[in-house]
Amino acid sequence: METMSDFSIKDAQRTRVGPGFTLSEVDPDSTPGFKGGNKDLDRAFREPDEELLTLQEKLWANGRRNPEEIGSVLVVLQGMDTSGKGGVARRVFGIFPPYGLKVYAFGKPTEEELAHDFLWRIRPQAPEPGQIAVWDRSHYEDVLVHRVLGLSPAEEIERRYGAITDFEWELSQRGTRIIKVMLHISPEFQAKNLLDRIENPEKVWKYQPGDIDDRRHWDDYQEAFEIALTRTSTAYAPWYCVPGDDKDYARLVVKYLLLNELRSMNLEWPEIHFDPDMEKQRLFDSMK
Amino acid sequence: METMSDFSIKDAQRTRVGPGFTLSEVDPDSTPGFKGGNKDLDRAFREPDEELLTLQEKLWANGRRNPEEIGSVLVVLQGMDTSGKGGVARRVFGIFPPYGLKVYAFGKPTEEELAHDFLWRIRPQAPEPGQIAVWDRSHYEDVLVHRVLGLSPAEEIERRYGAITDFEWELSQRGTRIIKVMLHISPEFQAKNLLDRIENPEKVWKYQPGDIDDRRHWDDYQEAFEIALTRTSTAYAPWYCVPGDDKDYARLVVKYLLLNELRSMNLEWPEIHFDPDMEKQRLFDSMK
Repeated sequence: METMSDFSIKDAQRTRVGPGFTLSEVDPDSTPGFKGGNKDLDRAFREPDEELLTLQEKLWANGRRNPEEIGSVLVVLQGMDTSGKGGVARRVFGIFPPYGLKVYAFGKPTEEELAHDFLWRIRPQAPEPGQIAVWDRSHYEDVLVHRVLGLSPAEEIERRYGAITDFEWELSQRGTRIIKVMLHISPEFQAKNLLDRIENPEKVWKYQPGDIDDRRHWDDYQEAFEIALTRTSTAYAPWYCVPGDDKDYARLVVKYLLLNELRSMNLEWPEIHFDPDMEKQRLFDSMK
Repeated sequence: METMSDFSIKDAQRTRVGPGFTLSEVDPDSTPGFKGGNKDLDRAFREPDEELLTLQEKLWANGRRNPEEIGSVLVVLQGMDTSGKGGVARRVFGIFPPYGLKVYAFGKPTEEELAHDFLWRIRPQAPEPGQIAVWDRSHYEDVLVHRVLGLSPAEEIERRYGAITDFEWELSQRGTRIIKVMLHISPEFQAKNLLDRIENPEKVWKYQPGDIDDRRHWDDYQEAFEIALTRTSTAYAPWYCVPGDDKDYARLVVKYLLLNELRSMNLEWPEIHFDPDMEKQRLFDSMK
């Protein structure tokens, strides 16, 4: 039963980045596969929650009991400033109990981090068996920002595409399911969000004057995204380019991609290696 | 305004472990400082949520903007099996957005971990600036289980009490506020919980036959807890011995201890170092 509400996993998968991907053909303000109003979207968004909670608990349970056999899930979130990465982390993944969930926001690298290879600070944030990890920004900053601002020489950036696919292959071989999401917004939508930040005393801390400098490089960033997505969207770590001007739609897509990944793991409760009746007897004996 | 509902921070603090602490004087089925029914408890439990969410967001905001100046919070949860550590993690801390929250459940040490000093696997789980970390079990296993089952010689366990207070002093000097909680349950309550696990197909994976072996050492564990709590309850990392047979009460106490700690940090939104009007103008210019 793959269809839930008016939106299905297959619809979510249409955002997948394949060969010949052209970013400019994706309309940030579109909602591929979804027709309907806010109520329908909200219903479709909530419908998988119960199943997701059970699947996550089974994943976590196996992580505790069969860490050698169970895998993990890694969700990478990228996008321009204010594209809604934090909101996805909170609204999609916030339903899970905090154990078993590992959300990490990569900030500007520290001096120590800069002194190492770009993957050095990334590796420790990989999910452990049974965990779901969410990265708000990631190793992709090192081919996106670095390309646009020329922070690394072209050969080094070239090398990194390969280093990234090698790294992700290594993770996948250890049983990590990888979902990479670009939240694709328009410059107009970003302007609206930045204005909202500047004007709101509880949000203004998120704003940095550099955010506007980045806007001058908008087209360069789009190009850097297109190249990075095309070159690193693999069978074991595919990219999804999700229109982001409708935040609720973007969250819906990410939730269904996660649902698909968890379903495909065929999760069961861990096998028990004892006789429940005998254990009950032992328990009663211990109460005497 | 320290009093909220019928329960206050001062009530929660009554569970603090001081000099001459005697574990057997704490009734696991009592609810010190709380009078009232389920509805009152539920109301008292929910009342600080909005304030807690704002405080946590301010903490997180400062972690992003002023990592050198802001501290962090560490909550250590200990208790016999089924004492409700996971439930506290989920119900008290699950209200926070997943970024900024770092919940870690320490399992049985791996071979690699055993090959190192007992604090080796603990250190990387310490909270970063602006984070709230919750440890479900901790370095205290290495003086509790190890003492009861004789896994380490007496001199080594003796050494560890000092190593623990040194380690916690070090954390506190880096700005980490530490709250340590023992969820104190009765053997009868544990028996009920274990039976519930054995009989429930969705919970039976949590059960391990060794849980009953541990019950035979109940008194030894109580003694080990009393010694560990007395010797390591310091001004900078106090222990709270919280009656746990009423899970809702225990969660209430932990929530109010957290509220107290966050309030005492005098958190404000990070200062901004730009002129909002000028930034608005720059934003408008960038849209031309």
